[in-house]
Amino acid sequence: MNNFIFENKTKVYFGKGGVKEYLGSLLANYGNTVLLAYGGGSIKRNGVYDEVTAILHDAGKTVIEFSGIMPNPTYAKVQEGAKLARDNHIDLILAVGGGSVSDCCKIVSAQANLDEDIWEMQTVKHALPNKFIPLGTIVTVFGTGSEMNNGAVITNEDKKIKGALWGAQADFAFLDPTYTMSVPMKQVISGAFDTLSHAMETYFGKPDDNNLSDDINEAVMRSTIRNIRVLLTDPENYDARSELAWASAMAENGILKIGKVTDFQCHMIEHQLGAYTNCNHGAGLAVIHPVMYRHICKDGAARFARFARNVWGIAPLSNDEATALAGVEALAAFIKEIGLPTTFAELGIPADSDLRAVADSTVLTAGCCKKLTHDEVYEILQECK
Amino acid sequence: MNNFIFENKTKVYFGKGGVKEYLGSLLANYGNTVLLAYGGGSIKRNGVYDEVTAILHDAGKTVIEFSGIMPNPTYAKVQEGAKLARDNHIDLILAVGGGSVSDCCKIVSAQANLDEDIWEMQTVKHALPNKFIPLGTIVTVFGTGSEMNNGAVITNEDKKIKGALWGAQADFAFLDPTYTMSVPMKQVISGAFDTLSHAMETYFGKPDDNNLSDDINEAVMRSTIRNIRVLLTDPENYDARSELAWASAMAENGILKIGKVTDFQCHMIEHQLGAYTNCNHGAGLAVIHPVMYRHICKDGAARFARFARNVWGIAPLSNDEATALAGVEALAAFIKEIGLPTTFAELGIPADSDLRAVADSTVLTAGCCKKLTHDEVYEILQECK
Repeated sequence: MNNFIFENKTKVYFGKGGVKEYLGSLLANYGNTVLLAYGGGSIKRNGVYDEVTAILHDAGKTVIEFSGIMPNPTYAKVQEGAKLARDNHIDLILAVGGGSVSDCCKIVSAQANLDEDIWEMQTVKHALPNKFIPLGTIVTVFGTGSEMNNGAVITNEDKKIKGALWGAQADFAFLDPTYTMSVPMKQVISGAFDTLSHAMETYFGKPDDNNLSDDINEAVMRSTIRNIRVLLTDPENYDARSELAWASAMAENGILKIGKVTDFQCHMIEHQLGAYTNCNHGAGLAVIHPVMYRHICKDGAARFARFARNVWGIAPLSNDEATALAGVEALAAFIKEIGLPTTFAELGIPADSDLRAVADSTVLTAGCCKKLTHDEVYEILQECK
Repeated sequence: MNNFIFENKTKVYFGKGGVKEYLGSLLANYGNTVLLAYGGGSIKRNGVYDEVTAILHDAGKTVIEFSGIMPNPTYAKVQEGAKLARDNHIDLILAVGGGSVSDCCKIVSAQANLDEDIWEMQTVKHALPNKFIPLGTIVTVFGTGSEMNNGAVITNEDKKIKGALWGAQADFAFLDPTYTMSVPMKQVISGAFDTLSHAMETYFGKPDDNNLSDDINEAVMRSTIRNIRVLLTDPENYDARSELAWASAMAENGILKIGKVTDFQCHMIEHQLGAYTNCNHGAGLAVIHPVMYRHICKDGAARFARFARNVWGIAPLSNDEATALAGVEALAAFIKEIGLPTTFAELGIPADSDLRAVADSTVLTAGCCKKLTHDEVYEILQECK
């Protein structure tokens, strides 16, 4: 096993009723002024907004609202939030929503304390912030796993780059699966597919031999697949929703990555697709994954064959290459089965999108089995159409 | 999934060379006086003592030594350490050794700040301490998983009770698998069996249906079994040692217990066996586990059958009861295969030991499949002879 340092400080409150039971007492640990951050207003329709604001009110907090955080949150939105936080001397940011709200707030919590531009700081100077406004999250949509780490994906519209920045990690995170009941099923499923994607992108990293993290990863992948299927036949199933919620956190809390060099090539491609088309993240991944894996699985046949056997229950075929491909086709069939798009056309991406620009701006990773070129990324994108 | 709260604040430095690379800079976060705690002196023979004291010296620390912490650490030893810590105004306790040293220091770090007796406080008043001397650990023997939680097992010799107390959780833990190279193989294996036992005692808790924690648990069990076998054929294998080291931490850092009510009945029996005979913990568990599971597996046939299939790779037999029993026999055969004792006689427990007293003083848990009585515990102990 490779050397590693592991630490995860987020305190997780998991399960129904957690906000009502614990948020009030937690608020006593922070100062008076709270930035209440959320997205397009769905929390006003499903009652979460009323629940949270009542608790904030009872705790005597002054609440400043930061609303309208969009899917694929933009850098401009980060700057808007940072100004709001600075101007109001915010003591705690409370992010209520999915990964977009959480990601945006992580960077707001850092930018608010910085004199310099955090994008330049991280992407040009390769320096990291170390002073943050405390952050807490209340998760209403699962999948990004944003709740238990300090990573954030932000779209810089001017630069046409959707990229990772590093900000605050939440002190506390409420994961209440009942909050997902009012989320459109399509979004729940694309979120769950994002979880599966995080697990796969880690699983196909290096090294790929004897490694407890991979054994655990297979358990997370199987559980995610199983519970997506349960949920589609029984949408009210609390257990399935809670398993998917916890899998979302587990896939990105660092445990699966222990001792591994991960490979997030599919995410890198999807991020640039998102930067150019603003498509749904999980759905974009669903289209790209099988196509990319068909391109590389021969170069990592033993590992992809293990994926086929241990995740999809495929009996070994005549050789690893054949088993590997069968595993990728099982993934492709699963994506179709659960109603996610299998082509860019189904995803609603315009036929005249500049896929060459998407390919050329994609960050190329170390490569899980094969290091891709920009031309190969372009080929993959063409096949996704 | 049941509601849960999860938090684990220990920062883990895993891998060879970690102490040399990071301990010095970590020490800067603490005051001047360090209590250096260790066991019977093996760290003086394998070089760890010299390595650590040199780093403490270079950091300008005043070092007070607290040595001779025994396997099955006693309550008297806790009081000795607490007095030493109080008298010397200790700023940091550095526990160097296995679970016994770590467990003893966790309670020392709490008792040193208390005016009252911590045993009475926790077992009679059911109150918990909340002020601790900071603790760091350097693990040299793995298995107890003490490195990433706040639990400790202490033997109260006067009361003849070996029981759990709650103290400090380490701020940081160094897990360097190379430190285990000089530990007798017998002790390495009995430690690894302790890991397997922790996983089993959690796995057989409630609930036992759809649960990511159980899926992950099976991965930990399979990895532990696989790597014990690797190590016995290739004792220098660093990868196997590192997998076992990380499995030790994973089995007791809370992840496997998420959403579960665990059942540590076998540990409860072994603890009292230890209180009366001072036997090795992992070896005691090895004797008791199969005997106890033969007693209860019919009452949890479906779960034990899953254990047989998913952990031991046993093809389903005619019914769950038969598969369940085959799983228990696979466990028993494994214990024999890896050279752990299978009877109290092999373990060196005197034939005239007071097993009635052991049974009657055993804490009875909720029962994973069947709640045992003291008479049944006595029956199990008799069969272990």
